[in-house]
Amino acid sequence: MKRHNFSAGPCILPKEVMLKASEAILDFDNGLSLIEISHRSKPFVDVMEKARALALELLGLEGKGYKALFLQGGASTQFLMVALNLLEKRAGYLNTGTWSDKAIQEARIYDDIYEVASSKDANFNFIPKGYDIPSDYDYFHCTSNNTIFGTQMKSFPDCDIPMVCDMSSDIFSRELDFSKFDLIYAGAQKNMGPAGTTLVVVREDILGKVSRKIPSMMDYKVHISKSSMFNTPPVFAVYTSMLTMEWLKNLGGIPAIEKENNKKAQLIYSEIDLNPLFKGYAMKEDRSKMNATFNLTNEDLKETFETMLKDEGINGLNGHRSVGGYRASMYNALPLDSVGVLVDIMSELERKA
Amino acid sequence: MKRHNFSAGPCILPKEVMLKASEAILDFDNGLSLIEISHRSKPFVDVMEKARALALELLGLEGKGYKALFLQGGASTQFLMVALNLLEKRAGYLNTGTWSDKAIQEARIYDDIYEVASSKDANFNFIPKGYDIPSDYDYFHCTSNNTIFGTQMKSFPDCDIPMVCDMSSDIFSRELDFSKFDLIYAGAQKNMGPAGTTLVVVREDILGKVSRKIPSMMDYKVHISKSSMFNTPPVFAVYTSMLTMEWLKNLGGIPAIEKENNKKAQLIYSEIDLNPLFKGYAMKEDRSKMNATFNLTNEDLKETFETMLKDEGINGLNGHRSVGGYRASMYNALPLDSVGVLVDIMSELERKA
Ligand SMILES: Cc1ncc(COP(=O)(O)O)c(C=O)c1O
Ligand SMILES: Cc1ncc(COP(=O)(O)O)c(C=O)c1O
Ligand SMILES: [Mg+2]
Ligand SMILES: [Mg+2]
Ligand SMILES: [Mg+2]
Ligand SMILES: [Mg+2]
Repeated sequence: MKRHNFSAGPCILPKEVMLKASEAILDFDNGLSLIEISHRSKPFVDVMEKARALALELLGLEGKGYKALFLQGGASTQFLMVALNLLEKRAGYLNTGTWSDKAIQEARIYDDIYEVASSKDANFNFIPKGYDIPSDYDYFHCTSNNTIFGTQMKSFPDCDIPMVCDMSSDIFSRELDFSKFDLIYAGAQKNMGPAGTTLVVVREDILGKVSRKIPSMMDYKVHISKSSMFNTPPVFAVYTSMLTMEWLKNLGGIPAIEKENNKKAQLIYSEIDLNPLFKGYAMKEDRSKMNATFNLTNEDLKETFETMLKDEGINGLNGHRSVGGYRASMYNALPLDSVGVLVDIMSELERKA
Repeated sequence: MKRHNFSAGPCILPKEVMLKASEAILDFDNGLSLIEISHRSKPFVDVMEKARALALELLGLEGKGYKALFLQGGASTQFLMVALNLLEKRAGYLNTGTWSDKAIQEARIYDDIYEVASSKDANFNFIPKGYDIPSDYDYFHCTSNNTIFGTQMKSFPDCDIPMVCDMSSDIFSRELDFSKFDLIYAGAQKNMGPAGTTLVVVREDILGKVSRKIPSMMDYKVHISKSSMFNTPPVFAVYTSMLTMEWLKNLGGIPAIEKENNKKAQLIYSEIDLNPLFKGYAMKEDRSKMNATFNLTNEDLKETFETMLKDEGINGLNGHRSVGGYRASMYNALPLDSVGVLVDIMSELERKA
């Protein structure tokens, strides 16, 4: 049976990427596996350099003073590294969901954090707007897409201080002026690759300004000085991320994929809005094009609906426990077709009910 | 041409592990790839639990108060985590090589470090012995096998304080009373799997005794409480490590592989000793069974020797720049045959010269 994978992350990756990654495990360099060669060998150094270059190229940040790194530890380690590298006195965070909240908790260990705004009281079903960012703070931190709640920032503040953004769940999905940001990070396991590496894109000139001594593995400057090879990198995750970025580039880059993502989002949200059996969770203007969150209006239909999903090979549609209901994650590699299948089931349920 | 992979890490893994890992990228769970399913799905949770159980089983540490974790960040991040979790006032480190030295540098950020002994002045060609470990220190740290210099600890001190050991390059290679250790860590990329995850085995009762607030991602207790799934784990690296541990268990576990490792070590070191063209780097009594370091006695033969190596498909024999010469890394998955081919080349060189 064909499966339609709506998993929130790790998630679907392009078929051709899976094929190449699988092949590289068997033979990558004249009969040697990708995972048995030295990370200091030319074939792997080339992979790392290509991955770093592709990340900057896709974001339009080449030659603008940024460096790309592929680190370990997940986006969760970035919550910590951001604070260690940038926080001297005080920073401002926009609290738009569980991940923002965790970023705030981690940073608090090091210094004072101020929430410029929060939608916590509404269980994060919208994005706060119209807040002030004090210009004497060390940096401003936001989360572009809230994976769990299905909200997404449609615009970003003009910011006098360094702007840091967790783009884990919508990187490479839509055109933005990425040069507005001074530090972008993203766990690979949504639009970029498999779990196991995290992309950090940082403007070098914001670094080196805090007084604390930063442990080597936590220090962006150390990783930059070693071209993202300070220690053994997560070889497989970096290679597969490189393949996925290559796939995206060949497709036409972010502008091309954004069109597809728009179609998928429009398809699912029209169904949610038109079908009386479903209700969207997030406020309309803040809806995420990556993660559509919705609920049944009649819980009695739960079993029927979920049996239909299963019968059609739909995978990973359960909502996160903090929201309940359903979440359709529609990352770059998810075909429009899969959304079509889901929407057909939703209509079918209405006809049946 | 058949390749013989002596790479120091990442390094050779068993052929059947490569095959299964490659297959799982294409189809792991009813048509879904290993790297596209949720890490919270039952198929992956089972992988993580099996990997954690196998690590304890192979080390004979089941039911003895230890927990196994598969983290990100490499062994280099453990240099830091060990200090953050255990260092209150002062710790004692045995300095036997580059990696011990780095562990010391990272820990110094947090508190006072005392080198109980060091072989740095001899460029680490031996393991210091007969040192004292003050019983009022927080812990003692050592490195069981020095990957770069080719020395290995044959015995470990009896230690009143917690004993921490970096076993990155000889874990699962030889029988030891592992219950002597309170915390063992090892980057996967030698005897355990591909780069991208690090095994930590820790006796729970040594934790929770420092006064500092530990960031979540750096806190062993946090990772233990979440069964090594506090954040998205490095799925592919954990799965492939599990396969490698399964392979080892089916082979007869550590006792069985130790016999093979002894044969390989004996074969190469006899050749080094008997052949006048080669000289071992490490002191004989401290020689590593994982990494044999040696030099040509006549540098004029370098080109001839290296051409012969290349012609026979030998990969990864170059010594680390801090030692020079050659390093034959003979991890668990390297067949005795490959050492045979190398030794034949060395004898052939003697006949020719
Ligand atoms: C927006 C966002 N930030 C951070 C994280 C945490 O990432 P990781 O599990 O790699 O630490 C996630 C995970 O889903 C996320 O969606
Ligand atoms: C004994 C030892 N410790 C630590 C490390 C560092 O490991 P990583 O590169 O995973 O940080 C190595 C790497 O080769 C090693 O051999
Ligand atoms: Mg700005
Ligand atoms: Mg509706
Ligand atoms: Mg003890
Ligand atoms: Mg000799």
